[in-house]
Amino acid sequence: MRAPFRSSCPLASTLDIVGDKWSLLIVRDMLLDQKRTFKEFSSSPEGIAPGILSARLKWLESNKLITKRKLPGNRKENIYLLSETGLALAPTMVELIVWGDGNLRERHPEMHSIAESGMAADKSAVIERLQAAYRQLVASLIG
Amino acid sequence: MRAPFRSSCPLASTLDIVGDKWSLLIVRDMLLDQKRTFKEFSSSPEGIAPGILSARLKWLESNKLITKRKLPGNRKENIYLLSETGLALAPTMVELIVWGDGNLRERHPEMHSIAESGMAADKSAVIERLQAAYRQLVASLIG
Repeated sequence: MRAPFRSSCPLASTLDIVGDKWSLLIVRDMLLDQKRTFKEFSSSPEGIAPGILSARLKWLESNKLITKRKLPGNRKENIYLLSETGLALAPTMVELIVWGDGNLRERHPEMHSIAESGMAADKSAVIERLQAAYRQLVASLIG
Repeated sequence: MRAPFRSSCPLASTLDIVGDKWSLLIVRDMLLDQKRTFKEFSSSPEGIAPGILSARLKWLESNKLITKRKLPGNRKENIYLLSETGLALAPTMVELIVWGDGNLRERHPEMHSIAESGMAADKSAVIERLQAAYRQLVASLIG
């Protein structure tokens, strides 16, 4: 895979990997909703097109944010799991959510509330809980 | 301006506003480097094309992340300043930087180190310092 980096800036470099409109939504589906199949990602409310979803999954896999595998009991279907590199995006995800919640509600009143998530009060606790739950999911699936 | 929101998810909604490859780099130029003119943004190492820069500045302004104005002593040149809504992206910016620093160095050894920024050790302190310095800049420019 060709090196995609525009500059030596770590922020620009991160955006070179996940700075499109879809990659972080796939990471969200995995981390927050524990989705893991192509069909599950396809059903998300933003309506990602199959071709884009397929390309983004390949991209995330080639950049080692996710892994693709099959489960022993089901040789037909691929599942996709976050790697530790992908899981390390949890703090970024939480900050993006908190910013949206705090700054877009007036223009977008239908936006879901984060009140019950505990994010506004204690981000670190939410991040740790999400990552722990995800690691538990991975362990339960692949041991 | 048409409502750009794909879903009720706060993460997706944030990405609908700043989830392209350029918007957060312009916010970076403003917040970290205190750049404020079209010419200064154009000179950043990622080489943003003038047409894209112009479109992104209009977009960020229409979404109230930045303001455009002229300074009393210079009626020719526009300057662009972050609003409080834009400044509220500082925690997201820091997390994107920390993730890049921690996860991309092997593939991108030329990436700048964040060691001297203090970000890895104390993100909150860095965020507060950046925001305070920016507010001071704004006050010094427009009182």
